Amino acid sequence: MPEEINRQWLLASRPSGFPQEGNFELNEASLPNAEHGEVMIKLEYLSIDPYMRGRMNEGKSYTPGVQIGEVMTGEGVGVVVESRSSALSAGDHVVTRTGWQEYSTAHESAVRKVDASVAPVSTALGVLGMPGLTAYHGTFDVIDPRPGDTFVVSAASGAVGGVVGQLAKKSGCRVIGTAGSDEKIAYIVNELGFDAGINYKTENVAERLAALCPNGIDGYFDNVGGETTDAVLENLATGARIAICGQIANYNDVEQAMGPRNLRTLLVAQAKMQGFLVFQFVQKHPAALERLSAWVADGSLKYKEHIVEGFEEMPRAFIGMMHGANFGKLLVKV
Amino acid sequence: MPEEINRQWLLASRPSGFPQEGNFELNEASLPNAEHGEVMIKLEYLSIDPYMRGRMNEGKSYTPGVQIGEVMTGEGVGVVVESRSSALSAGDHVVTRTGWQEYSTAHESAVRKVDASVAPVSTALGVLGMPGLTAYHGTFDVIDPRPGDTFVVSAASGAVGGVVGQLAKKSGCRVIGTAGSDEKIAYIVNELGFDAGINYKTENVAERLAALCPNGIDGYFDNVGGETTDAVLENLATGARIAICGQIANYNDVEQAMGPRNLRTLLVAQAKMQGFLVFQFVQKHPAALERLSAWVADGSLKYKEHIVEGFEEMPRAFIGMMHGANFGKLLVKV
Repeated sequence: MPEEINRQWLLASRPSGFPQEGNFELNEASLPNAEHGEVMIKLEYLSIDPYMRGRMNEGKSYTPGVQIGEVMTGEGVGVVVESRSSALSAGDHVVTRTGWQEYSTAHESAVRKVDASVAPVSTALGVLGMPGLTAYHGTFDVIDPRPGDTFVVSAASGAVGGVVGQLAKKSGCRVIGTAGSDEKIAYIVNELGFDAGINYKTENVAERLAALCPNGIDGYFDNVGGETTDAVLENLATGARIAICGQIANYNDVEQAMGPRNLRTLLVAQAKMQGFLVFQFVQKHPAALERLSAWVADGSLKYKEHIVEGFEEMPRAFIGMMHGANFGKLLVKV
Repeated sequence: MPEEINRQWLLASRPSGFPQEGNFELNEASLPNAEHGEVMIKLEYLSIDPYMRGRMNEGKSYTPGVQIGEVMTGEGVGVVVESRSSALSAGDHVVTRTGWQEYSTAHESAVRKVDASVAPVSTALGVLGMPGLTAYHGTFDVIDPRPGDTFVVSAASGAVGGVVGQLAKKSGCRVIGTAGSDEKIAYIVNELGFDAGINYKTENVAERLAALCPNGIDGYFDNVGGETTDAVLENLATGARIAICGQIANYNDVEQAMGPRNLRTLLVAQAKMQGFLVFQFVQKHPAALERLSAWVADGSLKYKEHIVEGFEEMPRAFIGMMHGANFGKLLVKV
């Protein structure tokens, strides 16, 4: 073993509102032991994702929250340094749920081997991992975009949104994205090929959507909720399909935020709104990853990574993401 | 012709908030003439429905609003007093979109003949008409209830809700209804066979739903919106299906009402919410009416009519409905 110490970030206290650095505590543990059928992994990249905010709460969600004093939850990609599995060898790259730490053990059944020759291994946490699969299933299995559709995606420069917009373009849609800076808007239009972008921090989203979508919005992939979603609901086309993927605009609310009662818009448009979790499509993950990998390999699916150096930066990187500071898939290089 | 005058209720002005009697104006017109292919109908029953409130507005909805000075829109059932159609004879009962008036002409292609031997002709405006079809398609084609589901319907003693709950019972669900009086709750439980009812005016709907639905709500047929729907969203089971049929709680709002931002509940429950209009299932109406008629005939589908006597009562009956004064399908006997 190259080191004897396994650094970990623990949940020290539950945030009220936006998380603070004091909600996390750096811990030094001894190295874990790989049991029979397990591998020991030295992490190279750890993923930072919006859903982690929900895990810091006590309340009920779709999976239990992290307990105080436990290692923060999350996925990582790394190299096998010791294998007690016949399926994996030292030197293999794998991705799995590791938590916020430098080393992790995992059972062979819980890891996915990553082929470093297809794309950088970090993509197993992004375009070829959970965010890419979320984009894929939400777009194709929930919204089902059709040629000629007007398609809107929020948080369009993010790890999920950037993929969603490109998949909708591949489906023949006119695609409009919302994001929080002119730089991000320029990126989705000039690099990713979106038809238009709206900077929700400086523009009136409802007015811009009405102008850009005179025949209404047919597909909406929602990563943010809040006022952006209100504006979309006021501009639906008949038969619109909406995928509710994330509601980051409200993840840090201390009291439940209020918004207009607008479900009547669903009735008038005969629209369908569906909340989904990537896990519900687990049977379809292999086929999805195969297609996503082929598109990354042929250059028709672009991605952007925002890599923060240093394990010790995890809390600051996470807090920054909650304020929109990242630009692309946020990763920490261990 | 038995009379020479056709009394009509016109839209005199657009309401701000709840409609008032002064928004309507009684008009005396001469009798219309049936053209080739048309029939002249002497109305016996006129329907009063919540959707009419939307037609009094200027704003965009799924069909255009009534213009000032025009006859109020609505359906009626009556007897053919003159036929210039080879398909219909004097004495036939028909249902069609007539407007709020005593006589109406209609083309043979726009009317549906009513068999008075199956059930009272008034049912063509209720359980065997638009409200019954709305209940049928929303329940079976949108929610798709399954045996063992916990199923909630709002405005459960109404023309739509009462049918919905009975169809869900036929599907093997545990059915809970909300309504606005103890008398209505007693009716849905004792007469219609619901498993439980909640009086939203005197009980805490969220607390009662949580207690009555410990495993969450699988199906929700929403006629009202507002706080009742908020309470349901906080108690969804995984995979819940929600049909948005009406939002009467907000139809008379002058300013857009605010409510909690709760779309995250759809994500956590992987739930589907779909707005629908009965017209989108027009191809399936004949089969639906056949099944509904058979159930009415065998006594397994019960209905309740609230019949107000006198054409002159139309505005007062409509205004009363907006305040929840009716109990069962509201009709005016001309």
